[in-house]
Amino acid sequence: MAQFQNATVVKEANVYFNGNVTSRTVLLEDGSKVTLGIMLPGTYEFGTDTKEVMEILSGDLKVLLPDAKDWTHIQGQGTFSVPAQRTFKLEVRSVTDYCCSYQ
Amino acid sequence: MAQFQNATVVKEANVYFNGNVTSRTVLLEDGSKVTLGIMLPGTYEFGTDTKEVMEILSGDLKVLLPDAKDWTHIQGQGTFSVPAQRTFKLEVRSVTDYCCSYQ
Repeated sequence: MAQFQNATVVKEANVYFNGNVTSRTVLLEDGSKVTLGIMLPGTYEFGTDTKEVMEILSGDLKVLLPDAKDWTHIQGQGTFSVPAQRTFKLEVRSVTDYCCSYQ
Repeated sequence: MAQFQNATVVKEANVYFNGNVTSRTVLLEDGSKVTLGIMLPGTYEFGTDTKEVMEILSGDLKVLLPDAKDWTHIQGQGTFSVPAQRTFKLEVRSVTDYCCSYQ
């Protein structure tokens, strides 16, 4: 069971899209930040501030990355990255559990 | 901004009711456990193992505690407790952010 040790967890949730996307912020020992989140089925567009690495822990979703013409399909587990200051689209098909890292 | 320091966070989410209720498990420095969760609108019945103290961080929900005849309404913030080995019902009216402690 993967765990983050010696972490600081922000109690209050981050809530987007009427709660269809929610996450908790976790500050790691090395000073970096991740958010652990859940996305319910739906279509979403997100914008990045810094570069983001999205690790899909479980789920079923299609991703349209910036500049991509074709959607990427992740079923189960997977990882994708989005550069800073860009937007990307998601089509979430089943409940998706993720860990997003900010770089 | 309330935070848990020196915590261990389980990466994988706990998912209930098709993702309408989800939480993350956080193991605290003193050895106790909390779950930080989100409930979307709906009606739910839960059973307790140990005694649970539910702190509502934000939301709008009605609670029917064990042995209670009347529902309790929490709008915004609040706290309620449920003894071990009992069931309770929730009618969640808007996205509800909670912290559940186990005793």
